[in-house]
Amino acid sequence: MVLQSIGVDIGGTKIALGLIDSSGNIVQYKRYSTDACLGPDAITDRVADEIRVILQKSKSQINGVGVGVAGQVDSVKGIVHFAPNLRWKEFPLAQKLNDRLGVPVVVINDVRAAAWGEWRFGAGVGEKDLVCLFVGTGIGGSIISGGKMMLGATNCAGELGHMIVDFKGPKCTCGNFGCLEAFSSGWAIGQKAQEYVVNGVGAGKLLVDLAGGDCAAITAKIVSEAAGQKDPLALQVLDAAIGALGAGVISLVHAFNPSCIVLGGGVIEGNPFIVEKIRMIVREKALVSAVKGLRIEKSILKDNAAIIGAVFCVNQLFKE
Amino acid sequence: MVLQSIGVDIGGTKIALGLIDSSGNIVQYKRYSTDACLGPDAITDRVADEIRVILQKSKSQINGVGVGVAGQVDSVKGIVHFAPNLRWKEFPLAQKLNDRLGVPVVVINDVRAAAWGEWRFGAGVGEKDLVCLFVGTGIGGSIISGGKMMLGATNCAGELGHMIVDFKGPKCTCGNFGCLEAFSSGWAIGQKAQEYVVNGVGAGKLLVDLAGGDCAAITAKIVSEAAGQKDPLALQVLDAAIGALGAGVISLVHAFNPSCIVLGGGVIEGNPFIVEKIRMIVREKALVSAVKGLRIEKSILKDNAAIIGAVFCVNQLFKE
Repeated sequence: MVLQSIGVDIGGTKIALGLIDSSGNIVQYKRYSTDACLGPDAITDRVADEIRVILQKSKSQINGVGVGVAGQVDSVKGIVHFAPNLRWKEFPLAQKLNDRLGVPVVVINDVRAAAWGEWRFGAGVGEKDLVCLFVGTGIGGSIISGGKMMLGATNCAGELGHMIVDFKGPKCTCGNFGCLEAFSSGWAIGQKAQEYVVNGVGAGKLLVDLAGGDCAAITAKIVSEAAGQKDPLALQVLDAAIGALGAGVISLVHAFNPSCIVLGGGVIEGNPFIVEKIRMIVREKALVSAVKGLRIEKSILKDNAAIIGAVFCVNQLFKE
Repeated sequence: MVLQSIGVDIGGTKIALGLIDSSGNIVQYKRYSTDACLGPDAITDRVADEIRVILQKSKSQINGVGVGVAGQVDSVKGIVHFAPNLRWKEFPLAQKLNDRLGVPVVVINDVRAAAWGEWRFGAGVGEKDLVCLFVGTGIGGSIISGGKMMLGATNCAGELGHMIVDFKGPKCTCGNFGCLEAFSSGWAIGQKAQEYVVNGVGAGKLLVDLAGGDCAAITAKIVSEAAGQKDPLALQVLDAAIGALGAGVISLVHAFNPSCIVLGGGVIEGNPFIVEKIRMIVREKALVSAVKGLRIEKSILKDNAAIIGAVFCVNQLFKE
């Protein structure tokens, strides 16, 4: 019998779940909007219900459930300490889901789950020294060093969006100044585009049109769309974001000396040309000794990285 | 019998060597100026001679010799690939020294050797997630993650001086812009002080006096001396360096989530108050979840970290 498990990705805006085999293939899939107002218990109820539906449909048995959650997680205890976008605090998700389903549940930070996915089944397969950098609404990542996922002293390693690329730079949502996230994340790109339009820097007509006439509705997604139509202002906004991203990647190259960097997340998926630009910046600027044999690749698993990675973590339990 | 080995630290300006026991204590010590012009073979001859003198004096037998070298090293092959300050290229130091002494020789990068020293016998003892950051003429470091020294894909991990803290910043010796080293290293501090004096920013009289009347002779050491006398210009120069160093440390905290950061090197030794300033910056600006339980400490082994660490690496050979 093929080993199968359920992977779940609980984010602030959407929840995805899938039945996944031990090779990382998605057998069944479901995605729906998170209704964070319902609170953690009702959200867990719905996740359990959706899992039951998938299991009935596929007539499958599973090893367990792996859940990636956008927040601070204690994987050993299965507790979500704090998930700001979900407004969860100290929620014992593993226990709650186990009560409902009667199978083992592993809870993991969503970004780390996505890194496991890319490492085991995606663009970073086989690498011993890997950096996964996900550039979405926010920026997060994970580092694999010497064949081991880096956890850090308090399980917080990989806050790569809050590495500082310009300590005299703009304010970040974290309260600090000049974080990578304050330049290159989705929220920063949207904000910068709005500023440019309001201040009349260049021609912002296309951006405003795509945002339905409302400057305040310009998002990174709209900037990507306009950039796809070669809109000069959108390209200018992205260029600034790419410059900072290049600096962040160079810092990672010099600190960790990885053999591979995987770039993923909505900003990269929306503007895949960024990957080649980052390759050029790194080739031009990083220390020669540190980039020997370095690959810089786009995420392969895209949106599914977290559910596939979460399942890999479950399957690990049954190996030992 | 107590296990003893010789540790050697070959830098561009000085060579230090010592007989060291397995607890990291220095039993015998010698230090002299590097005469890089002599070339690698003559320098190796002298190192071998000095080791013989120490062994005769102490009537000791040794396990082997550990050598830290300021350059790119292949520890497996015992080769120094490139040591710019020594002008060595592809020099098989381990073999050459073994030919002369008949004992096993381990060659390691000097910064990494110093990190081993601080980790095993210095300010980072017992830590599983440790960053050692040495701020001297240049800036280098090493990262220990999950109880393992991080090597990187091509043995280049830890180029922490070339993490970027301001991608629009000043040019670094590496050719890139805004590296931590371009703000906070000894050379950068000296250069910035000279610029301030030349441009008449504040009162530079004390700095020039301490440099014997020659503005071009102002070094980081002189800046430290003037700062010790509360010279406002020297303090201003150091403040800028500390701001950038704080940003670099925050990047390290967010990426690695260490339980301890050890700060060492001439700039820290010359201005030990920097350690408390960095603690304050990190406490104020870094993510709360990432600094839980974090210690920031000054190097304990100081100049001897590399010879003690190199010996630890030798002793490891005899454990397995």
